[in-house]
Amino acid sequence: MGFVDRKEKELLIRDFIISNIKEVMIKYGFQYLETPSFEYTDSIGKFLPDKERPDQGVFSFKDENNWLSLRYDLTAPLARYVAKNFLEIPKPFKRYQLGTVWRNEKPGPGRFREFLQFDADYVGTKNLQADAELCILISEILEKCGLSQEDYTIKISSRKFTEELFNEIKINSADQIGIILRALDKIDRLGWEEVKKLLGKGREDKSGDYTKGANLNENQILVIDKKIQDKESKTDDVNQIIKIFEAYEFSNYTFDPSVIRGLEYYTGPIFEVNLNFEIKNSKGKEVQFGSIGGGGRYDNLVNNFGNFECAATGVSIGVDRLVYALMQKNKFNIKSIKPVVICVFDKNKIKSYVDILKNLRNLGISAEIYPGEGNLKKQMQYANKIGSPAVILYGENEFKLGKATLRNLKSGEEISTEIKNLSNEIKKIL
Amino acid sequence: MGFVDRKEKELLIRDFIISNIKEVMIKYGFQYLETPSFEYTDSIGKFLPDKERPDQGVFSFKDENNWLSLRYDLTAPLARYVAKNFLEIPKPFKRYQLGTVWRNEKPGPGRFREFLQFDADYVGTKNLQADAELCILISEILEKCGLSQEDYTIKISSRKFTEELFNEIKINSADQIGIILRALDKIDRLGWEEVKKLLGKGREDKSGDYTKGANLNENQILVIDKKIQDKESKTDDVNQIIKIFEAYEFSNYTFDPSVIRGLEYYTGPIFEVNLNFEIKNSKGKEVQFGSIGGGGRYDNLVNNFGNFECAATGVSIGVDRLVYALMQKNKFNIKSIKPVVICVFDKNKIKSYVDILKNLRNLGISAEIYPGEGNLKKQMQYANKIGSPAVILYGENEFKLGKATLRNLKSGEEISTEIKNLSNEIKKIL
Repeated sequence: MGFVDRKEKELLIRDFIISNIKEVMIKYGFQYLETPSFEYTDSIGKFLPDKERPDQGVFSFKDENNWLSLRYDLTAPLARYVAKNFLEIPKPFKRYQLGTVWRNEKPGPGRFREFLQFDADYVGTKNLQADAELCILISEILEKCGLSQEDYTIKISSRKFTEELFNEIKINSADQIGIILRALDKIDRLGWEEVKKLLGKGREDKSGDYTKGANLNENQILVIDKKIQDKESKTDDVNQIIKIFEAYEFSNYTFDPSVIRGLEYYTGPIFEVNLNFEIKNSKGKEVQFGSIGGGGRYDNLVNNFGNFECAATGVSIGVDRLVYALMQKNKFNIKSIKPVVICVFDKNKIKSYVDILKNLRNLGISAEIYPGEGNLKKQMQYANKIGSPAVILYGENEFKLGKATLRNLKSGEEISTEIKNLSNEIKKIL
Repeated sequence: MGFVDRKEKELLIRDFIISNIKEVMIKYGFQYLETPSFEYTDSIGKFLPDKERPDQGVFSFKDENNWLSLRYDLTAPLARYVAKNFLEIPKPFKRYQLGTVWRNEKPGPGRFREFLQFDADYVGTKNLQADAELCILISEILEKCGLSQEDYTIKISSRKFTEELFNEIKINSADQIGIILRALDKIDRLGWEEVKKLLGKGREDKSGDYTKGANLNENQILVIDKKIQDKESKTDDVNQIIKIFEAYEFSNYTFDPSVIRGLEYYTGPIFEVNLNFEIKNSKGKEVQFGSIGGGGRYDNLVNNFGNFECAATGVSIGVDRLVYALMQKNKFNIKSIKPVVICVFDKNKIKSYVDILKNLRNLGISAEIYPGEGNLKKQMQYANKIGSPAVILYGENEFKLGKATLRNLKSGEEISTEIKNLSNEIKKIL
């Protein structure tokens, strides 16, 4: 159904990423903000990436007299927030947000309808240093997460470039431009031959769904093809950003005019964060990991909510995709901590078990008294199943001796030790 | 509309609470799990607290042939998860989850439709030590968050108690029992006189909405009134839990038969986490803070998904309410870190500003080059607005001297210092 359960290993890697994000955000001077999951549909509906299916793109509810929608990104809610709090916020306003977004799209393998996004934005400035810093801070986050410079590239381009392109091929209909931008944004996924169909008459996908094309002629398509492969003719804004990169001694970027970004609201520099390593896809084939996010300048979005002069630029990263990438890379080892299990021999001796338990927990050792009702065999099965490092056996014999048995579940070794030494012995095997 | 924007201070307190929760959960040996926001409506619809308004209780969507709903708690999704993964999970299964839940209820002042919940559950055990530990671990979390023993109480009771009560007043209709339980759960909020109406014919609230009553007669209501004030007649399961509390030397609980919990699926011990201090309500009146969560044993819930013998017990805490409580208590001071602002005098000197910036950030100091386009006056206004501790002035004069000016924005003091000493001087004033 396009939704998944997430287990400990994935969640721990996600927590690690999130703590790196927060650390970098503080260092870069961003405010922490959270908007709700729902917005009035009016506020976010107009910026949907796919205008052909406005209903299917989002989850919406009729709420008394208004329609509410689950946010499909964090940018439209930010624009609403800025407009609502325009007098109070600092200008420029730098905020970051971590939040789930929802897309009511056709679910498919590896295609989810709910994902965690991280966004950082500068609102209220045309200064291109903002755009440059977004690329730099994403790089810092990725490297903090264990990726090397070879593992990722920031690709940059600009909507000024597509503007020039549309002038050249004499296209000025907003609808047609929208179709072309969305088509070009799919080159990575579909390849140029399929995108050509979307630029021309239209394209039928494998499921038989037909997407209307932009109706360009062959010559126009040829001009586009040539232009998006020309990595020399940079626009002025891109040149300015590159100068700022040089001041930062940041070099892990490339200018790539084939970077388009599907959303129509971009007005200037755009960028994409690409992971360069290969992973196995669902069919076991090695494929490039590709984009984990991107962003760009959207100088007119906040204006939609009122008469605000409010230039802005921002970046979004798909956190679940980054988790997946890091899991594939296997770059690091986040250990789940599992409790030592104190086995229960006699329910009437609970006070003795609790004393051992409290002592371990007070020393910060993860521990539990076996929480079920089974016999010793069941208790051992349980301890092995949860991946416990050790069990503590404190039965009748041990009780008489005043010593407990500690069994290391990895090695199978057992030692007999005084209760007060248990924590030291456990620390040795953790 | 029942949804709110959350700002930095609140989010930092929430992060602090969440990190305490995670630490305690690891120590107690719980697994970290996350289920999606959506579930099939079939799976969670039947456990709605308010059967009178099944549609209004949750947010639902028609999805091709199925209905999907946003989860309204984390317990029904857990039951679904356990049923789905019954063969793989350890038994007992101890998991915790932090997640947003949604209620499609009438919004009102202080009444939100989206909130963050923390749940911890033991699934697959009838052992009452599980119920006892839930109370103890919540206490440990609250105390880690800065509350003292006087600030909170765990109130415990049992559904065995209401069972006895229903036998005594000769009520056995499930519908009627549901109405009575929900009515009694509202004593804290409405007071006994209003609840009496709900136990009798019914009640009209201030807005004119009418709620059907349980149709009990005066004598039956009298019996209930007497029973729920009798703090001596404990049920057997409550006595057992108290014995376990004693083994843990845990004493911050009271037996309180007026604790009812609205949900019908509870089958045994139930408990509520109450904060004892007073806060000002929206009208400025001092009121008891009241409950921030609770839970209990639900031995039959997982059975609903198939033929599983799967006793369980769990606790839920409203994290946003706990954030609010801690903010009111003002028990601690979480400082937002704000960046030192490097003012821009000459855009062509960006390399010099970036060098200062990188050096500070490398030392872990939050810093930024002024991200806007204003003159020095605007830059100073910006720095003050964001609560920056200091600005760095590095204009033509400073450039010639080879020294920068550091202005402390709290004291207004300025010092002139060599670039390489800036970080030391800044650390003194942070």
